[in-house]
Amino acid sequence: MIIHLENNISEESESTIKSSIETLGFTHNEVTTQYGRYFVCIGKKSIDLRSIGHLSGVKDIHKVSDPYKLVSGKWKVGKSEITIGGDLKIGNGNFQIMAGPCSIENEDQIKSTIDHLKKSNISIMRGGVYKPRSSPYSFRGLGIEGLKLWHDIASAEGIKIITEVMQVSQIKEMYDYVDIFQVGARNSQNFNLLDELGKVDKPVLLKRGISGTIEELLQSAEYIFSNGNEDIILCERGIRSFESAYRNTMDINAITILKDRSHLPVVADPSHGIGVRKYVDSIAFASVAAGADGIIMEVHSCPQKALSDGQQTLDYRQSAEAIDKILKVREVIV
Amino acid sequence: MIIHLENNISEESESTIKSSIETLGFTHNEVTTQYGRYFVCIGKKSIDLRSIGHLSGVKDIHKVSDPYKLVSGKWKVGKSEITIGGDLKIGNGNFQIMAGPCSIENEDQIKSTIDHLKKSNISIMRGGVYKPRSSPYSFRGLGIEGLKLWHDIASAEGIKIITEVMQVSQIKEMYDYVDIFQVGARNSQNFNLLDELGKVDKPVLLKRGISGTIEELLQSAEYIFSNGNEDIILCERGIRSFESAYRNTMDINAITILKDRSHLPVVADPSHGIGVRKYVDSIAFASVAAGADGIIMEVHSCPQKALSDGQQTLDYRQSAEAIDKILKVREVIV
Amino acid sequence: MIIHLENNISEESESTIKSSIETLGFTHNEVTTQYGRYFVCIGKKSIDLRSIGHLSGVKDIHKVSDPYKLVSGKWKVGKSEITIGGDLKIGNGNFQIMAGPCSIENEDQIKSTIDHLKKSNISIMRGGVYKPRSSPYSFRGLGIEGLKLWHDIASAEGIKIITEVMQVSQIKEMYDYVDIFQVGARNSQNFNLLDELGKVDKPVLLKRGISGTIEELLQSAEYIFSNGNEDIILCERGIRSFESAYRNTMDINAITILKDRSHLPVVADPSHGIGVRKYVDSIAFASVAAGADGIIMEVHSCPQKALSDGQQTLDYRQSAEAIDKILKVREVIV
Amino acid sequence: MIIHLENNISEESESTIKSSIETLGFTHNEVTTQYGRYFVCIGKKSIDLRSIGHLSGVKDIHKVSDPYKLVSGKWKVGKSEITIGGDLKIGNGNFQIMAGPCSIENEDQIKSTIDHLKKSNISIMRGGVYKPRSSPYSFRGLGIEGLKLWHDIASAEGIKIITEVMQVSQIKEMYDYVDIFQVGARNSQNFNLLDELGKVDKPVLLKRGISGTIEELLQSAEYIFSNGNEDIILCERGIRSFESAYRNTMDINAITILKDRSHLPVVADPSHGIGVRKYVDSIAFASVAAGADGIIMEVHSCPQKALSDGQQTLDYRQSAEAIDKILKVREVIV
Repeated sequence: MIIHLENNISEESESTIKSSIETLGFTHNEVTTQYGRYFVCIGKKSIDLRSIGHLSGVKDIHKVSDPYKLVSGKWKVGKSEITIGGDLKIGNGNFQIMAGPCSIENEDQIKSTIDHLKKSNISIMRGGVYKPRSSPYSFRGLGIEGLKLWHDIASAEGIKIITEVMQVSQIKEMYDYVDIFQVGARNSQNFNLLDELGKVDKPVLLKRGISGTIEELLQSAEYIFSNGNEDIILCERGIRSFESAYRNTMDINAITILKDRSHLPVVADPSHGIGVRKYVDSIAFASVAAGADGIIMEVHSCPQKALSDGQQTLDYRQSAEAIDKILKVREVIV
Repeated sequence: MIIHLENNISEESESTIKSSIETLGFTHNEVTTQYGRYFVCIGKKSIDLRSIGHLSGVKDIHKVSDPYKLVSGKWKVGKSEITIGGDLKIGNGNFQIMAGPCSIENEDQIKSTIDHLKKSNISIMRGGVYKPRSSPYSFRGLGIEGLKLWHDIASAEGIKIITEVMQVSQIKEMYDYVDIFQVGARNSQNFNLLDELGKVDKPVLLKRGISGTIEELLQSAEYIFSNGNEDIILCERGIRSFESAYRNTMDINAITILKDRSHLPVVADPSHGIGVRKYVDSIAFASVAAGADGIIMEVHSCPQKALSDGQQTLDYRQSAEAIDKILKVREVIV
Repeated sequence: MIIHLENNISEESESTIKSSIETLGFTHNEVTTQYGRYFVCIGKKSIDLRSIGHLSGVKDIHKVSDPYKLVSGKWKVGKSEITIGGDLKIGNGNFQIMAGPCSIENEDQIKSTIDHLKKSNISIMRGGVYKPRSSPYSFRGLGIEGLKLWHDIASAEGIKIITEVMQVSQIKEMYDYVDIFQVGARNSQNFNLLDELGKVDKPVLLKRGISGTIEELLQSAEYIFSNGNEDIILCERGIRSFESAYRNTMDINAITILKDRSHLPVVADPSHGIGVRKYVDSIAFASVAAGADGIIMEVHSCPQKALSDGQQTLDYRQSAEAIDKILKVREVIV
Repeated sequence: MIIHLENNISEESESTIKSSIETLGFTHNEVTTQYGRYFVCIGKKSIDLRSIGHLSGVKDIHKVSDPYKLVSGKWKVGKSEITIGGDLKIGNGNFQIMAGPCSIENEDQIKSTIDHLKKSNISIMRGGVYKPRSSPYSFRGLGIEGLKLWHDIASAEGIKIITEVMQVSQIKEMYDYVDIFQVGARNSQNFNLLDELGKVDKPVLLKRGISGTIEELLQSAEYIFSNGNEDIILCERGIRSFESAYRNTMDINAITILKDRSHLPVVADPSHGIGVRKYVDSIAFASVAAGADGIIMEVHSCPQKALSDGQQTLDYRQSAEAIDKILKVREVIV
């Protein structure tokens, strides 16, 4: 059960609501976000919602049986619309493409990428400065200095930045330079990181774990929301299966189901979703056809020379053509 | 290595070619199909193709390193176009939708389905008369009498029939009444059945096994082709994964990869691919966006009353709307 | 609900039972096996078993909610003991090792294998004469002539034969020469084949499908039992997973669970279960520790020269050492 | 290539070795652990090891092609023996059982568990004080105060403590109270955490990710080792598969393969490996039969009343019986 409180609720009303909840046999979690206040009530009692709903200070009340409550689509009228960097929007009918290299490498690469994005009317650049790598001996990214350089160039061009945060201590450090914090597949259940990102007032793009279930992804999102941040973007990026003809199995079903079960926007990552350059465009089209609110993909001026994994990265010509067709498919679907 | 022979090759030329192959250290399999003759040569020698290519009687010669050779896209110029029931075409730019119930139930159901198909300009009806069922106590279909009844009605209306064949002995029995033999996921590596379907001159739709790899599917298709039947349609129908939010994981990647690796048409089965009615349409759109040459889906006048599994079956209104949008997505993609 | 009938039941009693079942709202399947007669009743009614149990001709009556009924452990007192080739036993405390090559190759190989088996006191030889192969161009086995040769030699030495049957038409042909019919992983849901093996009076070893669930395996066994053959041996042989460090993922859990859910003996195939020679022995020990009633494994005088896949095949020395330790682990476990 | 340096190497020798490595075209990582110093050289050159091996200050030199180098079994003579809490040993022939509740609950529970352990001669107690939970609304453990309480009681009884650390900031806080830091499946690729645990001088038990590959597990261990901590225990705890008859698929193959590929001890967690109480013992026996150096399992005085997930937890009687048989299987295997 979710109780959405009035913004100007009196202390007295609040305490009446609390004692009513307790009397009914529920425990409750108080959640205050940038947009509202909620009591998330846990318990298995079956009650008449009106017994709470009529109380002073209650804006709205909803029964939500899902284990993920605040991110469930069952209580919120309409879909969430998230604002990125002050002016861009995603979700609730708004569509965004995010593109850029696997790793940020240097000034030239950043400028060249931004140039490509602007030609295709793309406003969000992806790129890694902290890279999770299977081997400790691999390149782990330029770090905070790379991010600052990137931010200097991108902000001057009106381009927003999405990049991965890997641990709690990086959040503060990165805060001034990012527009969207990305949580990678390996950290999809790093609950301490999710807790802290819930206390930030910038959007979080949360990737599904490499073998995370749809329910686990939604519960991870619930960690962020219940800590106070409603601006969450879900991301399907392929799961592990027995098939070895490609890198990951893009779970196209998940896009459709996430859109149905949650009010949050859902983005698809076709680059990791198949992991083979020549097929990335088709998987992007399919993702949009399945209902994705956005695409995040890898692009590089010369994928073969990319500092980290270029196998799934499009070059600028491929990217421009893909973007063009992505938008056409989107038009048919909406 | 595949050697495509001239149609009017002389015995002398043929024997020269054979001895040349042997001399080079290859073994060969002679394949005669409804459209041509091939020597499929197996061996690891690296040779100059011209040493065979210049021989009299050789129409064409190709190096194919794939373990599946005749169904590989590496030797055939262009994509295969398959003729169904004399006049319909699929593949090489031709798109087909096949729809109908899980199981054929009775005359009324057949007529009602055909009526629905004709209103949506669909010419191929799917339905099961032999049903593979996990439990021996479940309904196993109407059998051959059901097929005959279905054929009587459908042929009068110009509707083609696709239905599943489960064992060798059924092929002959069913031959006169089907336009496409369907091989189900559980029989995807029933090699004896595949051998025999290779000797038939009607198209075969071959479903991927529930955890069959892409390569295994192509090798199963090779069984059919190498026995003489080139008219093969591949079908992606979802694979088994750890996710339990739906029934199968539609492998959208496989559609794109099969289209690239083989010259055969590729059809998607969104009904089994996700297994939940309300999401079937989105998965159909995604499949077409990924490049499928056709869609096979379940439809029933009243899915809740369907004799066998109606959970993934669309009703007529849902089906008509889905078909409409499938065709629109197709237009953008081609 | 399973009703076990008295052997000498009168027609009158039988018809009384049938009408009682119908009155209660159940449908029933009549099953006659080599050992008894059963009515397998399907329906969701909750009844007092005594209302049937007291009827004349009823030997025993059991409520079995599992979808697999006759193979369930819920109705049979104790575990099934299966007789192989007239004198050997497996199940219910009896343990058997079955060993031999992937494919039967020639007389020398057969004799050499039997010699090895006898030295280790093993009485059952495995080997393939019909080989399911992914590629149509691979060696498919010596066929029925190979089986006859094998049988001549083995029967003279008192060695029993287990070999794979791939299609219905082979059953009759092979009948006189085999002691156990093996159903391979690819045919684990070839229901027509299972139906026919249910009509045979020789034991069937049923392998789990490469991604078959435990429940599907038990339902496939139910096909055999419900057609009249109670002599079924279940076999775990590894499933498909994302891991590529070995060939299949031996599902050690399945052995324990199958032993608990069914009264049938359970055999483990460590050769396919891991697919890498040097680890086969450890997986055999683990399987026995988990409760397996037997081990089936590949052995060849010279695995590197084996006609088909020798990667997982032990040589005679490895096999002898493994057998020795398998029996020691078995002693601790029982 | 791994160069193991002499302990008392001179600066001059060290610089000679470095310049030789560079000249050969390798980059190198300097690793100093509690036991030794290593240069881990990365590069694809094929060289004659003797060209480095003869240099002054080189204790040993090894070619290691595995992506994980220091944890590979290819360079270290014999297996690693790890000391726990000053006097206990695991690995290299030493076997340990670790048992205890899912979560630490209170003083009585701690005392009762220790009492049980001592009766079975077990010296290591497991238990969670920081619990990773899918839902933000679940009990997350007693935290550091719980750990302190536990440590007070356990240390007085000579019982060692293994418990999970979830983030970098907890390491320092927990250091004085734990004997083994446990890294859970969800943090198996939390590289920042692994880096920091590499700087600690206490053993780390590293669990495999829920769908981590064997190679990824070894690379995660490499993170710890390359940061300076050689005392690593690997742990197989079940992977995700399509099967739903149990909670995880115990990957028995992984135990055998990890033992072969690495010099580190390998522990099995049968509780999570199957996730169903009545089967845990069989999976423990199988794990030991496959070669595990230890077992970590859940036990509680009353599993049904356990604060967190008690489904896979043994009661004291079951635990005592299991321990007894585990040790008997171990005797046969060694």
